[in-house]
Amino acid sequence: MATLQLRSERKTQLIDVTAAVRDVAERSPGAAVVLFVPHTTAGLVTQASGAGATHVAADVESAFERLVDEDASYEHLDEGDRNPWSHIRAALTSSSLTIPLVDGRLALSDLQAIFFCEFDGPRDRTLLVTVV
Amino acid sequence: MATLQLRSERKTQLIDVTAAVRDVAERSPGAAVVLFVPHTTAGLVTQASGAGATHVAADVESAFERLVDEDASYEHLDEGDRNPWSHIRAALTSSSLTIPLVDGRLALSDLQAIFFCEFDGPRDRTLLVTVV
Amino acid sequence: MATLQLRSERKTQLIDVTAAVRDVAERSPGAAVVLFVPHTTAGLVTQASGAGATHVAADVESAFERLVDEDASYEHLDEGDRNPWSHIRAALTSSSLTIPLVDGRLALSDLQAIFFCEFDGPRDRTLLVTVV
Repeated sequence: MATLQLRSERKTQLIDVTAAVRDVAERSPGAAVVLFVPHTTAGLVTQASGAGATHVAADVESAFERLVDEDASYEHLDEGDRNPWSHIRAALTSSSLTIPLVDGRLALSDLQAIFFCEFDGPRDRTLLVTVV
Repeated sequence: MATLQLRSERKTQLIDVTAAVRDVAERSPGAAVVLFVPHTTAGLVTQASGAGATHVAADVESAFERLVDEDASYEHLDEGDRNPWSHIRAALTSSSLTIPLVDGRLALSDLQAIFFCEFDGPRDRTLLVTVV
Repeated sequence: MATLQLRSERKTQLIDVTAAVRDVAERSPGAAVVLFVPHTTAGLVTQASGAGATHVAADVESAFERLVDEDASYEHLDEGDRNPWSHIRAALTSSSLTIPLVDGRLALSDLQAIFFCEFDGPRDRTLLVTVV
């Protein structure tokens, strides 16, 4: 298992971790790589990246901010939880993602990238990468 | 494989199953534990729990109820499906979650808990726990 | 590993792939089947299907279309991404799903089906099926 160290720079930020995951996953024999986020205000998605899709990540970031409105009523906001929207946005993604390895390579399509989703940055973060 | 038996008490309820999952997972050698919900109006998330985060689950419950409005138009509501919002809320979470085992222990962070998400309670439910 | 070929017929369409996944998964010894979508405008959910639940898929399709409004502001819409809502809807599902095999059979409940979620059809699609 490898632990990737990340640093987010913005409150809501999709960070492309494909190269770092590939580096770990493609050095180990196995059928699939399991990614896991040991945080409760962050998650994982795969999304388009690169030529022709350079703006997808920004649109996804905005969409999550719109979907979970910070002006909505959070009854317990004053009782200790200072970022309820961050937790809820994270709950709409997944903490884990399992990607098959085919002939030792991640089975992503050409424009498909793995994004760590920060919803409460800027923060230092970790991502766990396990080949099974 | 183990089958955990759960009982939800409310229509929408996040139930902390961390201790029960840990009990199964940490007795079996393996690289990761796969959780699976064999229901279509329930799902899984990891979220914050415990000191300083005692209200996160309630805020997540309310957010899912707001996101999928029961007053919206469900064209097929009268034709057999009596809880479309329950199915849709479940579809926004995941039926499966894979958590790495590191030195035989679940790789959760300190405040990170595993929640079974009930969206159509109260009901008897099951959660499948498999070490791979 | 097997690659299933799919053809979607509508822009937003839940396609029941349970029988095809079962056919692959139940011929291979293993503890679980990993499903992975190598696309960025599609995803996976399990949901109810069959008698008594024939309309759930249609309600889920409509809900995803309502949740991510095509009339919202997408700042980068003119700069290359022509289907931001398709990417965002996909990001609300998951690219991967792991289902345990119990005595060689998929651990789905009676009415639970596996749906490939098309959010940018009609298109030719693939779904990767790996037993681990």
